[in-house]
Amino acid sequence: MTVSAESTTDVQVFPLIIGAGPSGLAVAYWMAQYGINARIIDKRSTKIFRGHADGLRGRTLELLDSMGIAHRILQEGYHGAGLKYWRPDGKGGLKRAGQLRSTIWDSSPYRMALLSQGRIERFFLDVIRDASNIDVERGVIGESLGYDESLENDPQAYPITIKLRTLSEEEATPVPNPGITPYRPARDDLEDLAPKRKHDVGTHETVRAKYLIGCDGAHSWTRKQLNIPFEGSHTDHIWGVMDVVPITDFPDIRWPSSIDSPHGHLLVITREDNVVRFYVPLQEEDEITPSFDRSAVTLDMLRERVKSIMSPFSFDFKICHWWAAYQVGRRLAPAVNKGRMYLVGDAVHTHSPKIGLGMNMSIQDGFNLGWKLALVVKEMAPPSILSTYKSERHQLAKMLLEFDQKWAAFFLKQKKKQHQLELDGLPEANPEDIQAMQDVFRENEMFAEGHVSFYKASPIVDKDSTPVAKHLTAGERFPQALIRKQADGQPWWTSRLLNSDGRFRILLLVGDCQLEDQKSRILALNGGLSALQRRFTPPKQKLDSVIEVKAIHSAPLDDVELSDFPPILRQFDETTGWDYSKVWSDSECFWDERCKGNAYEIWGVDRSRGAMVALRPDQYIGWIGELDDVAGVTKYFEGFLREPRPEAVL
Amino acid sequence: MTVSAESTTDVQVFPLIIGAGPSGLAVAYWMAQYGINARIIDKRSTKIFRGHADGLRGRTLELLDSMGIAHRILQEGYHGAGLKYWRPDGKGGLKRAGQLRSTIWDSSPYRMALLSQGRIERFFLDVIRDASNIDVERGVIGESLGYDESLENDPQAYPITIKLRTLSEEEATPVPNPGITPYRPARDDLEDLAPKRKHDVGTHETVRAKYLIGCDGAHSWTRKQLNIPFEGSHTDHIWGVMDVVPITDFPDIRWPSSIDSPHGHLLVITREDNVVRFYVPLQEEDEITPSFDRSAVTLDMLRERVKSIMSPFSFDFKICHWWAAYQVGRRLAPAVNKGRMYLVGDAVHTHSPKIGLGMNMSIQDGFNLGWKLALVVKEMAPPSILSTYKSERHQLAKMLLEFDQKWAAFFLKQKKKQHQLELDGLPEANPEDIQAMQDVFRENEMFAEGHVSFYKASPIVDKDSTPVAKHLTAGERFPQALIRKQADGQPWWTSRLLNSDGRFRILLLVGDCQLEDQKSRILALNGGLSALQRRFTPPKQKLDSVIEVKAIHSAPLDDVELSDFPPILRQFDETTGWDYSKVWSDSECFWDERCKGNAYEIWGVDRSRGAMVALRPDQYIGWIGELDDVAGVTKYFEGFLREPRPEAVL
Ligand SMILES: Cc1cc2nc3c(=O)[nH]c(=O)nc-3n(C[C@H](O)[C@H](O)[C@H](O)COP(=O)(O)OP(=O)(O)OC[C@H]3O[C@@H](n4cnc5c(N)ncnc54)[C@H](O)[C@@H]3O)c2cc1C
Ligand SMILES: Cc1cc2nc3c(=O)[nH]c(=O)nc-3n(C[C@H](O)[C@H](O)[C@H](O)COP(=O)(O)OP(=O)(O)OC[C@H]3O[C@@H](n4cnc5c(N)ncnc54)[C@H](O)[C@@H]3O)c2cc1C
Repeated sequence: MTVSAESTTDVQVFPLIIGAGPSGLAVAYWMAQYGINARIIDKRSTKIFRGHADGLRGRTLELLDSMGIAHRILQEGYHGAGLKYWRPDGKGGLKRAGQLRSTIWDSSPYRMALLSQGRIERFFLDVIRDASNIDVERGVIGESLGYDESLENDPQAYPITIKLRTLSEEEATPVPNPGITPYRPARDDLEDLAPKRKHDVGTHETVRAKYLIGCDGAHSWTRKQLNIPFEGSHTDHIWGVMDVVPITDFPDIRWPSSIDSPHGHLLVITREDNVVRFYVPLQEEDEITPSFDRSAVTLDMLRERVKSIMSPFSFDFKICHWWAAYQVGRRLAPAVNKGRMYLVGDAVHTHSPKIGLGMNMSIQDGFNLGWKLALVVKEMAPPSILSTYKSERHQLAKMLLEFDQKWAAFFLKQKKKQHQLELDGLPEANPEDIQAMQDVFRENEMFAEGHVSFYKASPIVDKDSTPVAKHLTAGERFPQALIRKQADGQPWWTSRLLNSDGRFRILLLVGDCQLEDQKSRILALNGGLSALQRRFTPPKQKLDSVIEVKAIHSAPLDDVELSDFPPILRQFDETTGWDYSKVWSDSECFWDERCKGNAYEIWGVDRSRGAMVALRPDQYIGWIGELDDVAGVTKYFEGFLREPRPEAVL
Repeated sequence: MTVSAESTTDVQVFPLIIGAGPSGLAVAYWMAQYGINARIIDKRSTKIFRGHADGLRGRTLELLDSMGIAHRILQEGYHGAGLKYWRPDGKGGLKRAGQLRSTIWDSSPYRMALLSQGRIERFFLDVIRDASNIDVERGVIGESLGYDESLENDPQAYPITIKLRTLSEEEATPVPNPGITPYRPARDDLEDLAPKRKHDVGTHETVRAKYLIGCDGAHSWTRKQLNIPFEGSHTDHIWGVMDVVPITDFPDIRWPSSIDSPHGHLLVITREDNVVRFYVPLQEEDEITPSFDRSAVTLDMLRERVKSIMSPFSFDFKICHWWAAYQVGRRLAPAVNKGRMYLVGDAVHTHSPKIGLGMNMSIQDGFNLGWKLALVVKEMAPPSILSTYKSERHQLAKMLLEFDQKWAAFFLKQKKKQHQLELDGLPEANPEDIQAMQDVFRENEMFAEGHVSFYKASPIVDKDSTPVAKHLTAGERFPQALIRKQADGQPWWTSRLLNSDGRFRILLLVGDCQLEDQKSRILALNGGLSALQRRFTPPKQKLDSVIEVKAIHSAPLDDVELSDFPPILRQFDETTGWDYSKVWSDSECFWDERCKGNAYEIWGVDRSRGAMVALRPDQYIGWIGELDDVAGVTKYFEGFLREPRPEAVL
């Protein structure tokens, strides 16, 4: 693959993605799905294999399921819904004070999963390669960035000029922290272990791009080029993080645990195989000294710190997979773009890793921007929809930072109280405080799991829709349920059947399709909806390639025939015959007890009369209306979709 | 990799496996797990990608789960538990006469899964490569076979001499049947798409082997070399099989269905994506004409046959993934070995594909022989245990053939009756006949799913054990249950935690470990069981590397501490600390409703007093006794395990 040219110029690319961490890969995922001519570069010579973030929340896993990779995460990772907490026992020791149990565990097929970021990137890379020729170009950085504002409004123009340089092995390989045990990566990671370069070391390449997406992490080069400040706390607190195979008699070492001892606070995260992650505060928020020297932190300091917090339990380790002194402030960039240059993920926001949301936010950022960008690049939607990236994600980042602050303040208060109790000679954990912690946890659980998102009204989120579904809200995720495919009876989670393939979806919750009334309502939908599809679909493409219509009825599967549904729900293709994937049933499955036929109740939709829902490609609800409100749903799509020009060649 | 030598000689290998279909791969799986110097050859230049068998039964999936690959099958395949059947409607058409529903769907986490054999071989190859350097050498056949009987009893000797030849591309590539649509294999199959050769075409290699395993299918070259006859029906019936993307208005085209029309019988098998398999009888058992010319069968003949059977529904297709005129008799080899040369899978037995058991039997054959062979090769057990391969699998093959015959006879009778009804002018399906079919199906379901196996008493199956567990039987599979890991609360199916890594297991069903009485019983086990482990484990290996001890208690997980268990259940390792994988709890999981805390009931074991079970490496029960019967379990292992010689270097 090595091109011997010293310097290549004038390569054109639709979007260039800088950074192949979770957020960059999420953007690249969409580029692959939409078949867009995109490139993605990363300064590191290889993907990461160990360390970094490791927590996936319910919502992220739902999205990963829609990409076809959640099952790999569940097979390899830890998947749970509880957190144990330990407090001083009043006698100089520690006692197990209780367990936080998720109260919303059944609101999703997925709960928190814990697995090394390197594996998650593996799965992303695999689905990107499955769908496209896009592959991360490693050991490459941007050296200079130019932007021609005068071209900004011309969709055909390439206003961005970026000079790339291929790094040497030395430049591209971060020095690992001392003390890390050598390891053998998983077999499917081996191919990506050897550094590969598209160009020779030192090659300069000038690329002109329509869009630039900066996914280059907390120290984003792109952000600096755009002159976007990073606002927030100036003195960071510093955490030690280490992934080790612990040697300890601490009873809950294989449970996610929070330990408050007189010697400090420790967060214990259960991981794949026998790995455990420890978050060790080195400098707490209330003890910040600007002079703290992060580079002086050693693995042995972390070891000793954990030892003292865990005492009287023993603690040590011989195998360390990864460790870092992790310095993080609560920071937010006030803007997420400058013209056609966007920032995503850690480049926009950073916060404490304590709340386990960094990777989730970043994946979801990229997931939010990617499909919109693809639609714009393909001229299927106007560039104006890109502004919803900020209105949707930036406020969430703000909320996240507030949440982080609240958690931190809460813990600080608890800590001080605890300290006072100790001075008073009453050092045992206080049940009231524990209750208070549970309350904070519960209050925020839907938010932390990503099951609420508060996306605002915009052209792609119609908040004025008719309230025909009690538990469906425009701008929120479509809640998951286990339903059955009419044609073959298979029970699938909605997260899987509403797969992230780039299409909008109209979900016809057709209610009881055995009622005569309802039958005629359903048949009547065909004309209007197929006209809507036809309008927005390029002439030579399949009718469902921009907007897919799927139906979910509430009658018993065995009492219904697929042929009762109108053609739009069983489209005919000359080569492959009828489409059997569009009609689903909310009914029990005799061989899967989790499939209860209660999806309509989950959605708060009337089992007889049903409703209609428009979903964006990212499975967020764009519009809700009456089942026969074809005019309404048409208006929704007219609000932002562009009719294809006959000469469009994308 | 190409070795230029014209002829290599005197290569030594412990076992040589001939044939890399499902049975050969199952044997190779064990060789990889035990780290055995094995080779596996196959005459085809590549693995298969399409066609061949496609049905996996519950028990096979349990075994695949124990190898860590069941989740991949469920993600890609169809997974169901029902069969629809269609009969004449009395008016010249067809009507849906009912649905066979599995009545034992909850006896396993897995039911029938349908996926192309090529994918299943993919997953096998992956786990074999994960664990070893063993890889299939393709485009290689055996040309001559010699056996020196005088060496048979010397474990160090290589009594088998086999001459291998590397085939040319032409010889090694079967001519595909005309009419197959070109395709792009899955990305992870691409690597195996290009033919690879270890040696140059034409190279002869002489290999001396300790054992030879012939897994070379129905027309086994090995069987012929061993002069073992293939006994059974002389006139085969002939089936057409085709995997197509159907274009049809037949309502149940995406359901496993059995269609009996006046024009013949059709079996419809739901497959991954939009593929459907059709089994079309070309020559039924009652209409066998020896003159039928299989080579004259064309894809269009199959198409026309299905069209007429399915009428008045329409039928056609444009995409055909694979088809064959499949000629099969009911045949059984009377012997499964000659000295140290064994036959496995289709090389021993063939039967109608109608009952969907070919691949299952073959995988289970290989799975049964493989670990025994490994133990013998490693001198951990005497060669005499190999005779249990025949006593266990051959009788099952016989039963399978009888079952096949019974099914066929039943259908023949039904067909005749139907024909008579038609002559009588009463051609509608008879409810009694349908009931009779359901009865036959139910009667045989546990057998068909592989959940009963009738393994006989032998040194590795102690049938005299105490009846302390109502639903556990020596010689049968250990019934699956969803239980929780004490250390981290994760609910796992037993099929996963009892993973196929080559170890025997002693399961301590320790009952209610909170009872004082029971506590002392548990603690008392430590000495005897660790002495047993030590006796049979090579000096430098970990104590649990030959026999692992695991405990499953019946108390609520949260009320129990791991530290209450004796050291054998939390072995300490200087590098990795305590082992957290050995203690499990049969209790509810608050975040997984399928985890009900009813495993003891499934096993029929007293929740207070418990029981002890010894499992073979293949998860079949070897011995059952009282929880404290250390003497009994020791006697069981003494019956066939060999104490390691200090100088053993394997
Ligand atoms: C060393 C480290 C340790 C971390 N530890 C934790 C932790 O313990 N817990 C936790 O929750 N989160 C942790 N995080 C943060 C977590 O990984 C992020 O929240 C998450 O990965 C954000 O994803 P992202 O894609 O936005 O950024 P990142 O994952 O940071 O990805 C940015 C990518 O851009 C590349 N890049 C950077 N600059 C350039 C450039 N100029 N040119 C080209 N490529 C560039 C980087 O090599 C990287 O691959 C850590 C991050 C880092 C870097
Ligand atoms: C063409 C074909 C079609 C089939 N169709 C169906 C079906 O529709 N439904 C069904 O249930 N079952 C079908 N089967 C049978 C099913 O595949 C088997 O029951 C199952 O695969 C048995 O596994 P096995 O490993 O014992 O044998 P096989 O899967 O037959 O594997 C034997 C392997 O040995 C190799 N081999 C053969 N001879 C030699 C030699 N001399 N030297 C080296 N290698 C050799 C072959 O290339 C093959 O890879 C079919 C089998 C074949 C061959």
